[in-house]
Amino acid sequence: MDYQVILEEINNEIKPYLNQGKVADYIPALSQANSNDFAMSLQLLDGTSYHVGCSDLHFSIQSISKVFTFSLALDIYSKAIYNRVGHEPSGNAFNSLVQLEYEKGIPRNPFINAGAIVTTDSLISHHKSSLKAYEEIESFISSLCDESITFDETIYKSELECGFRNVALINLMKSFGNIDNDVQAVIKTYFKHCSLMMSTKQLCRSMLYLANHGTDPITNITHINEPKAKRINSLMLTCGHYDASGDFAFHVGLPGKSGVGGGIVALIPKKMSLCVYSPSLNKQGNSLVGTKALELFTTKTGLSIF
Amino acid sequence: MDYQVILEEINNEIKPYLNQGKVADYIPALSQANSNDFAMSLQLLDGTSYHVGCSDLHFSIQSISKVFTFSLALDIYSKAIYNRVGHEPSGNAFNSLVQLEYEKGIPRNPFINAGAIVTTDSLISHHKSSLKAYEEIESFISSLCDESITFDETIYKSELECGFRNVALINLMKSFGNIDNDVQAVIKTYFKHCSLMMSTKQLCRSMLYLANHGTDPITNITHINEPKAKRINSLMLTCGHYDASGDFAFHVGLPGKSGVGGGIVALIPKKMSLCVYSPSLNKQGNSLVGTKALELFTTKTGLSIF
Amino acid sequence: MDYQVILEEINNEIKPYLNQGKVADYIPALSQANSNDFAMSLQLLDGTSYHVGCSDLHFSIQSISKVFTFSLALDIYSKAIYNRVGHEPSGNAFNSLVQLEYEKGIPRNPFINAGAIVTTDSLISHHKSSLKAYEEIESFISSLCDESITFDETIYKSELECGFRNVALINLMKSFGNIDNDVQAVIKTYFKHCSLMMSTKQLCRSMLYLANHGTDPITNITHINEPKAKRINSLMLTCGHYDASGDFAFHVGLPGKSGVGGGIVALIPKKMSLCVYSPSLNKQGNSLVGTKALELFTTKTGLSIF
Amino acid sequence: MDYQVILEEINNEIKPYLNQGKVADYIPALSQANSNDFAMSLQLLDGTSYHVGCSDLHFSIQSISKVFTFSLALDIYSKAIYNRVGHEPSGNAFNSLVQLEYEKGIPRNPFINAGAIVTTDSLISHHKSSLKAYEEIESFISSLCDESITFDETIYKSELECGFRNVALINLMKSFGNIDNDVQAVIKTYFKHCSLMMSTKQLCRSMLYLANHGTDPITNITHINEPKAKRINSLMLTCGHYDASGDFAFHVGLPGKSGVGGGIVALIPKKMSLCVYSPSLNKQGNSLVGTKALELFTTKTGLSIF
Repeated sequence: MDYQVILEEINNEIKPYLNQGKVADYIPALSQANSNDFAMSLQLLDGTSYHVGCSDLHFSIQSISKVFTFSLALDIYSKAIYNRVGHEPSGNAFNSLVQLEYEKGIPRNPFINAGAIVTTDSLISHHKSSLKAYEEIESFISSLCDESITFDETIYKSELECGFRNVALINLMKSFGNIDNDVQAVIKTYFKHCSLMMSTKQLCRSMLYLANHGTDPITNITHINEPKAKRINSLMLTCGHYDASGDFAFHVGLPGKSGVGGGIVALIPKKMSLCVYSPSLNKQGNSLVGTKALELFTTKTGLSIF
Repeated sequence: MDYQVILEEINNEIKPYLNQGKVADYIPALSQANSNDFAMSLQLLDGTSYHVGCSDLHFSIQSISKVFTFSLALDIYSKAIYNRVGHEPSGNAFNSLVQLEYEKGIPRNPFINAGAIVTTDSLISHHKSSLKAYEEIESFISSLCDESITFDETIYKSELECGFRNVALINLMKSFGNIDNDVQAVIKTYFKHCSLMMSTKQLCRSMLYLANHGTDPITNITHINEPKAKRINSLMLTCGHYDASGDFAFHVGLPGKSGVGGGIVALIPKKMSLCVYSPSLNKQGNSLVGTKALELFTTKTGLSIF
Repeated sequence: MDYQVILEEINNEIKPYLNQGKVADYIPALSQANSNDFAMSLQLLDGTSYHVGCSDLHFSIQSISKVFTFSLALDIYSKAIYNRVGHEPSGNAFNSLVQLEYEKGIPRNPFINAGAIVTTDSLISHHKSSLKAYEEIESFISSLCDESITFDETIYKSELECGFRNVALINLMKSFGNIDNDVQAVIKTYFKHCSLMMSTKQLCRSMLYLANHGTDPITNITHINEPKAKRINSLMLTCGHYDASGDFAFHVGLPGKSGVGGGIVALIPKKMSLCVYSPSLNKQGNSLVGTKALELFTTKTGLSIF
Repeated sequence: MDYQVILEEINNEIKPYLNQGKVADYIPALSQANSNDFAMSLQLLDGTSYHVGCSDLHFSIQSISKVFTFSLALDIYSKAIYNRVGHEPSGNAFNSLVQLEYEKGIPRNPFINAGAIVTTDSLISHHKSSLKAYEEIESFISSLCDESITFDETIYKSELECGFRNVALINLMKSFGNIDNDVQAVIKTYFKHCSLMMSTKQLCRSMLYLANHGTDPITNITHINEPKAKRINSLMLTCGHYDASGDFAFHVGLPGKSGVGGGIVALIPKKMSLCVYSPSLNKQGNSLVGTKALELFTTKTGLSIF
């Protein structure tokens, strides 16, 4: 298959959809994204990569960071992490407190905000320092994409100023005993890794180890063992898009994870990793054009896992 | 791979687990199943099949029928069916009324009871008769496995006498206008197809068209088109096991659907269909040994879709 | 105080509000009520009574019957009835299944539909016959107002045909083991006593025993003992108006019970009973003008219990 | 009636219950209360007062402060305060986030934690300073009981350190736009007035204006007008005891408000105010012996409002 031709086709076909969604505006820093921007990258296990659009533009990865932090936590804690966070779809909006309260402070999965906050807390406990935990996260992702990445100070501060609902979540979990460290330290670390800036090129490269069941096919470094890698992939499929996870599995048919900054990563096991970017979001808070582009991709290539 | 050897291995390895769960006892007829019974069948697209255990024993397929009724309804109504039933995981127990009430009588997906009741109602509307609708369901599944199947009168009557919660579900949906036909006629048709009796051999054969993207690879009959078949498969992955769907995706990594009678069907796209039977259930209401057997299968073969 | 003058004033002052609400239209029979009709009756413990408007018009008492059935059940079962129905406000709409599911089929109080269905079931158990139970209810209320009353066949049949949500409620409770008798027999008895037709004059008279702590001040018959009568009164205050009970206590300040047919009964302990009728309902399903009239009454007389 | 005799009787009759409940232990400072302590005070409108037990012992008034802060806020904002906090019973535990999320950050009533936090926020907005708002609250209650009162620094700091669920509540409301001021400033002010230390003698005296419809019968100062005072009283009846408000109305039959520190205030309109103290709590978080003592009081005197 000529992937470059397919990406170019997609780039044309998504144009009518570019302004249909709504750029995230819950913090000012995100609302300034250009809703005409679009990028799509894919990388095969042999390292060959294909790109279209502004694939070098750095955007806020937001919830995509949850994949990397969970990968680190699962590697460290193995099954023990499931005492603190489940692996079931949530059936509710991404930041709902309802389910969290009924389930005594145990988030349904690591890809909703509450679950990623718990994951972050577990990394701080492991490194005995929120600073070291953050540095580990940053350096892990940097090493994955072989480029130095960093977080955006403005976005980070905006999150800190406006993230009341996340502060509600962490305090609720703390009240149930499911947060070990200082609430402020944890939430700051969480907001920092959500504010990391990356391009589709970098994110696509960073996901390649998961497409290859845990081992980076280029460097040959095993970041996580095969069973755990498969479980992360299954989690992305069932829980990667909040309350539209079923819809994404239905239309796209790939494990993936979206961020409210407009990015979506996805992968085809043993074949390739993908990343799209377009900042306008659909009603469920996932990139509208990004979802469309991935649906076009699996339709054109027949590469859905189903 | 020598699938027969693998099935024999599994048959041995699951023995210690045989009495750990609990046979469904909400109706007397189901409670009499023998918790030592175990069967597993698999069939490749070329028709070759492998079996272990009591693979000719007929058991109550229960919720596995939801796959076939949804397949019929999706074929008839296409996207229009989604106005009446969603395609998102439910995040709640299989017969919860809570979500149904908050979501105004629209069930989250066709694989929870409420969703399958709506699907059944849609088939009755299409055939303008509950009797014809039931006959169509029975004859569809019979043709799929090329053997005549029928429902168990005792189980059907037990369901009618004890199924108060399902009667609550259908009346709640009726009050929201999401049931078109007479409540009694719909619930009876629903209980009838849940009471169909099949063996793992038959169920496995019946699922082969979905493993082959809608076209039976042996008869070459297309029962549903490829995009729709893929969507049914994705739905089985995200919603096939009630509130343990994430867990099943996590441990087994295959699209599948369980029934409270102890059966589970699963498939590996473009490769094979599978069916296991063991009547003791885990806490989420899925066959405990059946789930374990499928997990052993994907571990041994590396054939998880992730 | 000249109560007749006060009633006449209220009759004038409510005129601008007469068409602001919405007559119940969930069953055709109720929707034909005339939204210009208004009646108000009050009766002192010495038997003196005052009336304004169409105080002889018979209307469907609907949920007001819940007061009488609970009075009978509390008299029979005493505290044991609380094993099956609570005495807390519900904080949800009058027919919500959500709370009922979370609380395992035990309704919050006897004045929401689910609670009154349980009460009705308990009366059927006591009389070992649904017919006898209904006759006992009818004859109890008839004796209270010293006139023969009966239910409206058309309304009763409408309820039976359209009452899907109540059927959902009773089946849910049955699934939790909180309904002892046949579901159809209970629901029919429930709909019958909801369809009883009475005038404000009759209802006001019927409530006099509760205003007098259980003993009819005119006949001197004790229908329920004083502590139980006080508890029924407190229940009317905290739970008598579904999710607007707080609002009613707030604005009117009297124990009361409304029905979706447009009637509201209320009482001032050791002083008088009251009844208003006006069929247009406010958003919470209580008579809009009826509530207003009672608020005017306590404002003009200073007779709120607070 | 000889109230002193009645109080002495109650003091004897409650003895067997003194150790049945559980002293609040969510903060260390509260857990040190002596579960054998008991006090009860009542004061008539003419100023005569009666006391039994340790009626001069200062305890943490906790949620009883909600009555005074709501009184201040209702006086300032009148009906406008209802845009931010409702007046319906909550039907849920006192600190539940579920209902708050479903109802978009508008608490059900001012006597649950969320509601009192909103009330506190409104007072800070009015005084344009959290310090001044607190001083106003302290000086208002001091003037009501004619004695200088102050908050307990240890309890206040414990609350600040452990009050994660309240911090969750305020952040959730802030995310819905229902908190105007800085979250930390509001929560500190809230915890301060919860940590006020008062005796039953003082609390009883402080509630006398509400027993007299807003005007202190001894000083003749009107603190709030009559209609507003009646509404506060009705709110205490329907919402004063969290999810046991119906139970309290049922057994005691008086408007009242409990605090987790073991105190309960109550009143008989136009007759008297009451206060009891006993630190062991029942399952709903209200003083077990305090509730019992008030029930004995209304049984002995027949002074229930019903």
